Amino acid sequence: MRTKEPRVYFVGAGPGNPGLLTLRALEVLGKVDVVLYDNLVTKEILSKIPQRVKKIYVGKRPGKKGITQDAIIQKIIFFAKHDKSVARLKGGDALFFSRGSEEAIAMNENGITFEIVPGISSVIGATAYAGVALTHRDYSSSIFVATGEEGKSHPQRINWQNLPQSGTDTIVVVMGAKKFRVIARQLLKGGMAQDTPVVAIRWGTTDKQEVSSTTLKCASSGKIRIRSPSVIVVGKILTLMSKISWVKPRNQGIDSHRLWRRMD
Amino acid sequence: MRTKEPRVYFVGAGPGNPGLLTLRALEVLGKVDVVLYDNLVTKEILSKIPQRVKKIYVGKRPGKKGITQDAIIQKIIFFAKHDKSVARLKGGDALFFSRGSEEAIAMNENGITFEIVPGISSVIGATAYAGVALTHRDYSSSIFVATGEEGKSHPQRINWQNLPQSGTDTIVVVMGAKKFRVIARQLLKGGMAQDTPVVAIRWGTTDKQEVSSTTLKCASSGKIRIRSPSVIVVGKILTLMSKISWVKPRNQGIDSHRLWRRMD
Repeated sequence: MRTKEPRVYFVGAGPGNPGLLTLRALEVLGKVDVVLYDNLVTKEILSKIPQRVKKIYVGKRPGKKGITQDAIIQKIIFFAKHDKSVARLKGGDALFFSRGSEEAIAMNENGITFEIVPGISSVIGATAYAGVALTHRDYSSSIFVATGEEGKSHPQRINWQNLPQSGTDTIVVVMGAKKFRVIARQLLKGGMAQDTPVVAIRWGTTDKQEVSSTTLKCASSGKIRIRSPSVIVVGKILTLMSKISWVKPRNQGIDSHRLWRRMD
Repeated sequence: MRTKEPRVYFVGAGPGNPGLLTLRALEVLGKVDVVLYDNLVTKEILSKIPQRVKKIYVGKRPGKKGITQDAIIQKIIFFAKHDKSVARLKGGDALFFSRGSEEAIAMNENGITFEIVPGISSVIGATAYAGVALTHRDYSSSIFVATGEEGKSHPQRINWQNLPQSGTDTIVVVMGAKKFRVIARQLLKGGMAQDTPVVAIRWGTTDKQEVSSTTLKCASSGKIRIRSPSVIVVGKILTLMSKISWVKPRNQGIDSHRLWRRMD
């Protein structure tokens, strides 16, 4: 399908477990000159990149000063224009809830060829490792996925209060640890049941995986705090968890208090 | 994290391109005794399974009589109870919009150990190969994904007409080729703009990839027909496609008429 090798590869590294890297991702990481990698790319994945490849950290940590999005784009362009092949390596997928689309557009506008190498999003990968199915014929045939960052760096468009009226079965919030209390309140106002189960998964698919459960009512109360980075799932389908769970790490189980911390 | 090898593996094969198989999926397919595979698993992926592994087709074609879900579950249980290790190989992800959750629950109820190996869903993979980003800070920070099969084999819960009021930016419909005309009408009734772009992607990530564009108004008219299996995307973010597209196969582009056929 391609006639010439592209200059830049936008590569999804998956949720953290190196087994969840794709064959194409591994192939690309083995042949490029430079890898620019994110905060959420794990050591185990970086260890799969050959020694001769230049590895540059361009992560942005929430709430901390770091490299700007524009500076990352300029770095990619710099290497590409100096005849280097670049892999832009991101946790999860290459585009899905990353800034990958903005970076790809910048390549297009600068006449730089690229390929997109999709990765396992934590929405799908971390949930599977936590025993959370997002779909089931009798429980969930629709999913709403949104970022909790909306309204901060994104324009505010989601109307959480109207969401329950759309009949959406399952809600997934990424980058929403801090804002989830507000979201939970709006979902309750919109008519969602107080005892709707909520699960938060942190470092899913890795040895550090933490899984914790609560209810929508409890999550709205301010008595618990979800830590970043977490994938948060809301919906009745979570009642199936005990039958789908298959990973038994240290931090698994509803009794874990590592994730939920009281706010004092 | 695991102490003992499980009996059954639920493996996502990805959207079709063999490069999008994960390292863990390839490892599992290389060591099991039996692979039970779906309709959407491509020849290229099957060719990666060693000769000695028994490969059994258990696909269900829409509208055609085939194996029942219960018969598939019985087959998995049969092999597992006869001391064979089984990979249940599915197009896309192992759980996401598959019947994987039902199959995993059946294993749990029969005391059979299992592992879930997530795969690239066509929702993420096929879109990326079509130049469709699902998220972008200025265009889309929320996605609604649903099956068009709801109401047939699934109970009807989605209220498509109320969906636009939730402020959802981007809508993705899987298994909805036939029903999309009805869905488009309901979205229009709910206030979505007539000129909202619609893209359908068929056989995404493979050499047969077909990508075609229209508007919500046109899709609702009955003058066009979308062929199965397609991933259908609706939203303003599709206006970015020309800047994100990177695959140039035979059937790419808005002039393709292979996908949209007039109904006579």
